[in-house]
Amino acid sequence: MRIVLVEPDIPQNVGAAIRAAACFGASVEIIEPCGFPLDSREIRRVAMDYGLLAPPLAHSGWRAFQEGLKSEPSRLVLLTTKGAESLWDFRFAPDDTLLLGRESAGVPEEIHAAADARIRIPMAEGARSLNVATAGAIALAEARRQLGWVV
Amino acid sequence: MRIVLVEPDIPQNVGAAIRAAACFGASVEIIEPCGFPLDSREIRRVAMDYGLLAPPLAHSGWRAFQEGLKSEPSRLVLLTTKGAESLWDFRFAPDDTLLLGRESAGVPEEIHAAADARIRIPMAEGARSLNVATAGAIALAEARRQLGWVV
Repeated sequence: MRIVLVEPDIPQNVGAAIRAAACFGASVEIIEPCGFPLDSREIRRVAMDYGLLAPPLAHSGWRAFQEGLKSEPSRLVLLTTKGAESLWDFRFAPDDTLLLGRESAGVPEEIHAAADARIRIPMAEGARSLNVATAGAIALAEARRQLGWVV
Repeated sequence: MRIVLVEPDIPQNVGAAIRAAACFGASVEIIEPCGFPLDSREIRRVAMDYGLLAPPLAHSGWRAFQEGLKSEPSRLVLLTTKGAESLWDFRFAPDDTLLLGRESAGVPEEIHAAADARIRIPMAEGARSLNVATAGAIALAEARRQLGWVV
């Protein structure tokens, strides 16, 4: 499994996603532009702390990411507060790609439309949003609960 | 449900726990000592952003917290990497108290022994640890998956 962070705007969230993904046996990739250097000391430190020798793989943009899907197809599962399907009803597959948007603005409409599934984490009535890295960690944990430790 | 942070050492984790707990309809309490002021601007801002008018309820120590359990009994569920039972096999109850230790050192042995249940989040082989607030959010999400939105 992999998490793909779409145009992340907060470096701490990239670090938090790397850490959570490492714990659940998933990789992290980035779709640029991103508002900070991916080889920043902070991100490099988190990555190395979690056994990764390099910063996350970066795609230059959405089109470049889509090109890559041609040779390695994967279902695109967008995690969004606007998703119609509950995380807990959704059935993950081992080669799913989990898409996470910006902390401030989610994903562009084009990416929302291109996703194969749009799922939301159920929350208390009136609740605001989860931090995007926390949401990703919750979704990865649920995927592992369902799938176990298949690759 | 409630999360109780035992002697937290990182203010950002308190903020992250408040945010996640608000999303899953849980409250946050603290067992002191804690290495920073609970009415710090940072924690106050997170609490108010998430609709809470005051910083989390603080207990002066483990004994004071235990005293409070006499009038309001609650099962103490410790989240720990040393837990024998998987989060996914554990059955939550609506009035459970989820105990979370320090980012750096977990909980003291006395609290480990006093817990009614000790559960762990399953992780990939060789993985290090989740951030404590992330772990709390994953456990709360699992509790809500099991219980729904009962209080």
